[in-house]
Amino acid sequence: MSEKNRVSLSMAYRLLHPMHTVLVSCISKNGKPNIITLAWVMPVSANPPLVAVSIAPKRYSHSLIEETGEFVINIPTIDILKETLFCGRVSGIDHDKFKETELTPLPAKKVKPPVIRECVAHLECKLHKQFTVGDHTIFVGEIVEAYANKEAFTEKYDLERARMIFHLGGNDFATLKPKVFTAEV
Amino acid sequence: MSEKNRVSLSMAYRLLHPMHTVLVSCISKNGKPNIITLAWVMPVSANPPLVAVSIAPKRYSHSLIEETGEFVINIPTIDILKETLFCGRVSGIDHDKFKETELTPLPAKKVKPPVIRECVAHLECKLHKQFTVGDHTIFVGEIVEAYANKEAFTEKYDLERARMIFHLGGNDFATLKPKVFTAEV
Repeated sequence: MSEKNRVSLSMAYRLLHPMHTVLVSCISKNGKPNIITLAWVMPVSANPPLVAVSIAPKRYSHSLIEETGEFVINIPTIDILKETLFCGRVSGIDHDKFKETELTPLPAKKVKPPVIRECVAHLECKLHKQFTVGDHTIFVGEIVEAYANKEAFTEKYDLERARMIFHLGGNDFATLKPKVFTAEV
Repeated sequence: MSEKNRVSLSMAYRLLHPMHTVLVSCISKNGKPNIITLAWVMPVSANPPLVAVSIAPKRYSHSLIEETGEFVINIPTIDILKETLFCGRVSGIDHDKFKETELTPLPAKKVKPPVIRECVAHLECKLHKQFTVGDHTIFVGEIVEAYANKEAFTEKYDLERARMIFHLGGNDFATLKPKVFTAEV
């Protein structure tokens, strides 16, 4: 076996990275939209279709999701990497992230938060449950509507056309090779 | 905006894929180890260091984790793609997955389930909480020990040396380009 190095427990989460990175849009009660960049997101149930995101209580979007019970998961590509990092680094309390990034809000179909035009896919969610775990909250959303760019997804993503973002840690990101490995049992 | 296609709610989870794919090892009370392949896994808390995995109750590993309260998340690479798919497709009830895949169990440091030698990193976990969500259970584990191949990880992964697996859907997988994009705000 290769020599193993111990990883400090405070950095151990990075062993699960690179994680697929998303832009979650949400909205305040009085209609001001916001965006938060997250890599801690995963599906959790097939039927009903549920997804989980983990957000620290100090984040502005945490209060918005609690307030309105709705959010949209948008899938960005490497073309908007700079905007994606920006939305993860500054707070919506004192920034209008749509305005500052020039990302385009468009009306969603079944929820109030807008979808982000420049993303390749969108999952509209209504809050199903939430759990406090350590220093974060797991928000579980039920997917109520989903759609994707026609050329980017048909049952699976086309990796040539959807160059998605994976967070390595810090300011570092990667993207996938378009080659698909198909295994057989 | 590109033309958008609606995605059926039963397939919408795939819009969050490709997901970083892991091998979770667990063990029965009488000491028989098992492996389950999962793509629904993410960090959920920094301090304490917690990770979440989502597993259907019908899976054999679900009962093992409930029984012993311990599991290890092992990070596989494309070199063991076939074994990784196998461990996700068959049940430990009637298969000895270590024996059939020839993956090598080695003793962990702080928990009873073995680590998998052929993987590049290992997170030893003790069950912290569990939640039922839809048709799955979210198991939240506290990371009690973590280590990685010396050449593959130092604060972040070296993507040239750790060619990790991302699950696209069905039997299809991808891996990352080694190029790192470093964004600045």
